[in-house]
Amino acid sequence: MTEQTYLANGNEVRLFEQACRQRLPVMLTGPTGCGKTRLVEHMGLLLGRPVVTISCHDDLTSSDLVGRFIVTGGDVVWTDGPLTRAVKAGAICYLDEVVEARHDSLAVLHSLTDHRRTLYLDRAGEVVRAPEEFMLVCSYNPAYRSSLKELKPSFRQRFVTLPMCYLPPDREAEVIVAEAGIGLPTAQRLVRCATAIRTADEAFHFEPPSTRVLVTAAHLIAAGASELEAAEACVLAPLSSDGGVSEGLREVAAASLADADSPNPNR
Amino acid sequence: MTEQTYLANGNEVRLFEQACRQRLPVMLTGPTGCGKTRLVEHMGLLLGRPVVTISCHDDLTSSDLVGRFIVTGGDVVWTDGPLTRAVKAGAICYLDEVVEARHDSLAVLHSLTDHRRTLYLDRAGEVVRAPEEFMLVCSYNPAYRSSLKELKPSFRQRFVTLPMCYLPPDREAEVIVAEAGIGLPTAQRLVRCATAIRTADEAFHFEPPSTRVLVTAAHLIAAGASELEAAEACVLAPLSSDGGVSEGLREVAAASLADADSPNPNR
Amino acid sequence: MTEQTYLANGNEVRLFEQACRQRLPVMLTGPTGCGKTRLVEHMGLLLGRPVVTISCHDDLTSSDLVGRFIVTGGDVVWTDGPLTRAVKAGAICYLDEVVEARHDSLAVLHSLTDHRRTLYLDRAGEVVRAPEEFMLVCSYNPAYRSSLKELKPSFRQRFVTLPMCYLPPDREAEVIVAEAGIGLPTAQRLVRCATAIRTADEAFHFEPPSTRVLVTAAHLIAAGASELEAAEACVLAPLSSDGGVSEGLREVAAASLADADSPNPNR
Amino acid sequence: MTEQTYLANGNEVRLFEQACRQRLPVMLTGPTGCGKTRLVEHMGLLLGRPVVTISCHDDLTSSDLVGRFIVTGGDVVWTDGPLTRAVKAGAICYLDEVVEARHDSLAVLHSLTDHRRTLYLDRAGEVVRAPEEFMLVCSYNPAYRSSLKELKPSFRQRFVTLPMCYLPPDREAEVIVAEAGIGLPTAQRLVRCATAIRTADEAFHFEPPSTRVLVTAAHLIAAGASELEAAEACVLAPLSSDGGVSEGLREVAAASLADADSPNPNR
Amino acid sequence: MTEQTYLANGNEVRLFEQACRQRLPVMLTGPTGCGKTRLVEHMGLLLGRPVVTISCHDDLTSSDLVGRFIVTGGDVVWTDGPLTRAVKAGAICYLDEVVEARHDSLAVLHSLTDHRRTLYLDRAGEVVRAPEEFMLVCSYNPAYRSSLKELKPSFRQRFVTLPMCYLPPDREAEVIVAEAGIGLPTAQRLVRCATAIRTADEAFHFEPPSTRVLVTAAHLIAAGASELEAAEACVLAPLSSDGGVSEGLREVAAASLADADSPNPNR
Amino acid sequence: MTEQTYLANGNEVRLFEQACRQRLPVMLTGPTGCGKTRLVEHMGLLLGRPVVTISCHDDLTSSDLVGRFIVTGGDVVWTDGPLTRAVKAGAICYLDEVVEARHDSLAVLHSLTDHRRTLYLDRAGEVVRAPEEFMLVCSYNPAYRSSLKELKPSFRQRFVTLPMCYLPPDREAEVIVAEAGIGLPTAQRLVRCATAIRTADEAFHFEPPSTRVLVTAAHLIAAGASELEAAEACVLAPLSSDGGVSEGLREVAAASLADADSPNPNR
Repeated sequence: MTEQTYLANGNEVRLFEQACRQRLPVMLTGPTGCGKTRLVEHMGLLLGRPVVTISCHDDLTSSDLVGRFIVTGGDVVWTDGPLTRAVKAGAICYLDEVVEARHDSLAVLHSLTDHRRTLYLDRAGEVVRAPEEFMLVCSYNPAYRSSLKELKPSFRQRFVTLPMCYLPPDREAEVIVAEAGIGLPTAQRLVRCATAIRTADEAFHFEPPSTRVLVTAAHLIAAGASELEAAEACVLAPLSSDGGVSEGLREVAAASLADADSPNPNR
Repeated sequence: MTEQTYLANGNEVRLFEQACRQRLPVMLTGPTGCGKTRLVEHMGLLLGRPVVTISCHDDLTSSDLVGRFIVTGGDVVWTDGPLTRAVKAGAICYLDEVVEARHDSLAVLHSLTDHRRTLYLDRAGEVVRAPEEFMLVCSYNPAYRSSLKELKPSFRQRFVTLPMCYLPPDREAEVIVAEAGIGLPTAQRLVRCATAIRTADEAFHFEPPSTRVLVTAAHLIAAGASELEAAEACVLAPLSSDGGVSEGLREVAAASLADADSPNPNR
Repeated sequence: MTEQTYLANGNEVRLFEQACRQRLPVMLTGPTGCGKTRLVEHMGLLLGRPVVTISCHDDLTSSDLVGRFIVTGGDVVWTDGPLTRAVKAGAICYLDEVVEARHDSLAVLHSLTDHRRTLYLDRAGEVVRAPEEFMLVCSYNPAYRSSLKELKPSFRQRFVTLPMCYLPPDREAEVIVAEAGIGLPTAQRLVRCATAIRTADEAFHFEPPSTRVLVTAAHLIAAGASELEAAEACVLAPLSSDGGVSEGLREVAAASLADADSPNPNR
Repeated sequence: MTEQTYLANGNEVRLFEQACRQRLPVMLTGPTGCGKTRLVEHMGLLLGRPVVTISCHDDLTSSDLVGRFIVTGGDVVWTDGPLTRAVKAGAICYLDEVVEARHDSLAVLHSLTDHRRTLYLDRAGEVVRAPEEFMLVCSYNPAYRSSLKELKPSFRQRFVTLPMCYLPPDREAEVIVAEAGIGLPTAQRLVRCATAIRTADEAFHFEPPSTRVLVTAAHLIAAGASELEAAEACVLAPLSSDGGVSEGLREVAAASLADADSPNPNR
Repeated sequence: MTEQTYLANGNEVRLFEQACRQRLPVMLTGPTGCGKTRLVEHMGLLLGRPVVTISCHDDLTSSDLVGRFIVTGGDVVWTDGPLTRAVKAGAICYLDEVVEARHDSLAVLHSLTDHRRTLYLDRAGEVVRAPEEFMLVCSYNPAYRSSLKELKPSFRQRFVTLPMCYLPPDREAEVIVAEAGIGLPTAQRLVRCATAIRTADEAFHFEPPSTRVLVTAAHLIAAGASELEAAEACVLAPLSSDGGVSEGLREVAAASLADADSPNPNR
Repeated sequence: MTEQTYLANGNEVRLFEQACRQRLPVMLTGPTGCGKTRLVEHMGLLLGRPVVTISCHDDLTSSDLVGRFIVTGGDVVWTDGPLTRAVKAGAICYLDEVVEARHDSLAVLHSLTDHRRTLYLDRAGEVVRAPEEFMLVCSYNPAYRSSLKELKPSFRQRFVTLPMCYLPPDREAEVIVAEAGIGLPTAQRLVRCATAIRTADEAFHFEPPSTRVLVTAAHLIAAGASELEAAEACVLAPLSSDGGVSEGLREVAAASLADADSPNPNR
């Protein structure tokens, strides 16, 4: 994915850059596989800064973020965690799926996200002021929010929020061609298949297929799988929690891929 | 923010100073971003005392507050926590969002908040009497209270309680201008936008936008974003838990910012 | 507070002394701030014994009470906890808010509270018989009892139980004058205000204001606050969990403090 | 309490001795303070064996029972727990309130309570066969049983079960006189008071007062308290979870103690 | 108990031996005290292999089964757990009451119970292939199954399952005579008493008395207790969770033991 | 089981190989004992790569997967976990029953399953890029899915999903003959028995018997057990959670095995 991809889909690249210039933290929201992680990687390249990625999860403690004491040579030595390393290095620190983290772990971010831009390492007895270059970016998928896991308003209000969504069909097909090296007609059929399923979403109540699964299917086709095989294994089967493909979904896919009866042109 | 800000909004600066003189602990209450942390920083400067801030969270143990034994050089050495350090230094110890802390962690505060003004370090076998200068300040946001998390009356009754609220519109606009360096008309439009949303609060049931988000939006405008872009990213999107902006909110914002059709005067 | 305070309010000082003479443990019950902790301190002075105070909480383990092995100089050494220290020293050991403790932590008290008067340190392999001077005192606030936290009857039956309550108005005003050094009329108005709220208790369903908050308010008045300001910050605001003061409560307070319109005589 | 006490109240002393001779474990059941612990102490004297008492609670781990590795001098050394020590010493091991223990902790007892009479120390890699003299005794108060805490039938079926109950009034008064050294008429009035309350049990739904609280009250009377004061502090107040004494209970007590209007003959 | 006991009660000894010859794991099911543990001990003798018994419980971790790193002489050394020791020794490893174990602890058994017959010690970085002689045997009591604790079908399908039940009355009486050395008529009366209670099971809803409790009662009779005393203490009292014996049960027992009015012939 | 088995039952061997060539992770779904583990072993042989198997369970931490610091010689040394070892070795890493794992443990897989193919060892401060040969394979049994344990769509969408099912009867009998060395007629009767039960599935609501249990039964027959004995112990008894066999199931089995009245031809 190139810079244009983001320019085309909205103002997120510009607003991200403006927030960065003003030393404001950014929150990215949007569905699975819509490109949140790629945007952060893209901005790291564009702004010339390293990106430190932290995948959030239920068990992530504040010690995992800021560091802890570790026994070395019989002694106990403080070792910076990835957040502290990112602050000191003036990097972009990216907290992926921040809504998954325990809220108490996020408390250490408060002083980093307001006018203080400071990290308090209570246990190490150290106070780290973030350099100008440091930037904090978080992301989450609103489709997973639950009453137990919702971010607190006081946390959300600390960020410039940039909502993201899927690419329009033409751009999505271009991305698939660029990523997997298959022909445009096959890519367009895959996008048509995905669009049909996304439209049927309300009836089926599943997380719609992302650009990522289309790229995966395209890779499988490039390796010799038929389009229907690839769509079943990469697009349809992951939709349901039992890995099986219902007859209705198979019909939707088969109809979308109808032109693919002809020999696979990608091999 | 300067001292006048607090003088203007009520008697909190004077009462804080009187409580300090009588060596009484203070409890600040009020909504997100109304200036509780800033008041404590302000009082620290005014009274010439260092401020030790502790962000409370579910996992904060009493050991995190008072200290613990740490292995050093093969030996186990007692290391004071931030509360103990604050007591010994005669500092203002500020427990931010104290309602988030586990109640059992707060038990160590009891002997500090009554006539004893003493910290019992049971594990270290040490008794620390607070010097005259020491002051304990706690804060919480009543909007987050729940039956599980409510502070016990016996805890609340140990403090001089100072309720805080948002600034009046004129003062709020002044603060935005001072903080973000944008023009007064833009600041006033942002305050008008926030006031419209705060008024619509009861219908929408969300945490109203704080002064903080207006300052953030102003910073983004100062970096070149349009007023509507900034309002959407900093004021509207954080209101909902999915980061999206509803059509109704966008209309409210657009109407408040109507005068902003003219070229951005801040660039 | 002096000895007379307790003599006047009931037979608790005499019964406490008699229980002590017979080596029986004592349980103090009563509302927040009615003087339980002060009675124990008073009895310590009267009986010429040191008082070891332990604030109970959810996380207090039996190791916190009796002691644990600690690594020192590469070795593991047993270190007595405050309960064991109190037993060995023949002190009065005071377990404040014992109902908050985990019941399993309290099991170590059983052999101390019956005819054995013995502490079994299973992990240290030590058996400590309490000297004649040792006395165990517990307290709790019955207003906080819940089905989850109720003390077991078999535990309660091990103690001489002394219920305590607030002082009568005249004595309470005397205490306030003695503690905070304000004039008697102001103290009487504060007591009148507290009595009005305590009477309205059933309608409002809150923990009534204790003598402690009146003393705090008196201190604030002594520092220059008006009586209404002090009553709002110290008596009324802590009543509700959001720190705000309702109009009804403010009227009750204003009526009680009516005579205070005249200039503050304490400054 | 002497041997006759148990001989008089049933066949428990003889059956205990017979179970001991056949190397069978014994389970004592009965209400608070009916003498379970004293029976075990009595049998220890009678049989000439030491008694190792373990108070069961929610947090008692199997390591607490059998032992654990402890770091000493830089090395890790296995240290026997009280159960293992009791087995090796051929003692009577008494698990007080066994129903409070975690069921998984009790699993280590299985091989001790069937024909194997063996303790498997899996972590130490040691197998300890109990000598002839070893005996396991458990007790619990059925009044506390709950679905969560009930002993499993397969556990109960491993024991000779001896149900115990309170003494008849005459014997109970004798015990009080012997324990506290007060006059028989006072002891009889205390027993009458307890009997009245025990009879009213179904109406009040509380754990009835045990012989223990009567002995405690007698001690307080011996120290100079009036009979009503002692009954209130030791018999009535522990009945309710708030430590207060209801008017109805006070009337029951006053009526039972009516003869005590005359001067206290114990001083 | 001898080999014939098992031959008589079904085909379990032969099937156990056949499973062992084919290196298949065995699952024993059946009520409390029906002889599961004894069968395993019997097969160990018959097949000439050592038996390693592990009592399962809620807190049994996979480390408790396979081993862990232990600090020795300043270093960390891997120490095999009982399962690993049993595998390496080619023993019969017997997991008693496997349904009590945490399911995650059982995951380490998967590779031992299929064609791999291999134990993966992930933490030690070791792969242990079981010798021909190794055999895994598990047992559980289906009467305790609950939705929370049921073994997963995929786990149950890994075993040859051998259901076991109580002996017929004549054999049961023989076992009692052989175990406790009492006369046959007394043994027969005890069995008659147990059979009466087992038949009344549906009305009373308790775990029926096992052969084990009859043997225990016989032991007590051998020590001089009357038959009714022994039946009450060993058979009836353990049936109910309060250790008491209802009138109805006592009548059932008294009727079954009616012939015992004559002097006890066992003394 | 040989390669042909998989070729015959679908396209899973080819798609697995194509996904491997494109460096895409694979998810296998299907019922207990349908051959998921065997397919992975088969592909390891076919592709000439080692297979590292990790059995997932509730307590599997991310440290168990990626590694942890271990004390050696007084120092703390990082030790790779099986996932990290598999990545570095370019192996096939097989996470068996991945749905059982804690979701937070799975977060470390995210960066391995997208275009990054990278493992971030935050605690070791190391970034491991997977070599071309590395492949991640997961499996789960959809029959066990529950709302608590369902894999997140964003996780499922990262894999090429290959649903698997039981073999057709003829092939299944061939497998049984090949595995257990019994005659074909016996194998066919066992398959007929299994098919009858699988068909009755909806009425009985149990996990249907897998090929694995048929192979186990065949092994027992090969050791001399009758067909009905083997079917009862290996096929029927594991179906119900109490290990007992209902009369209805026994009739189904007896009817299917009817031809087996003749002497067992396998001995």
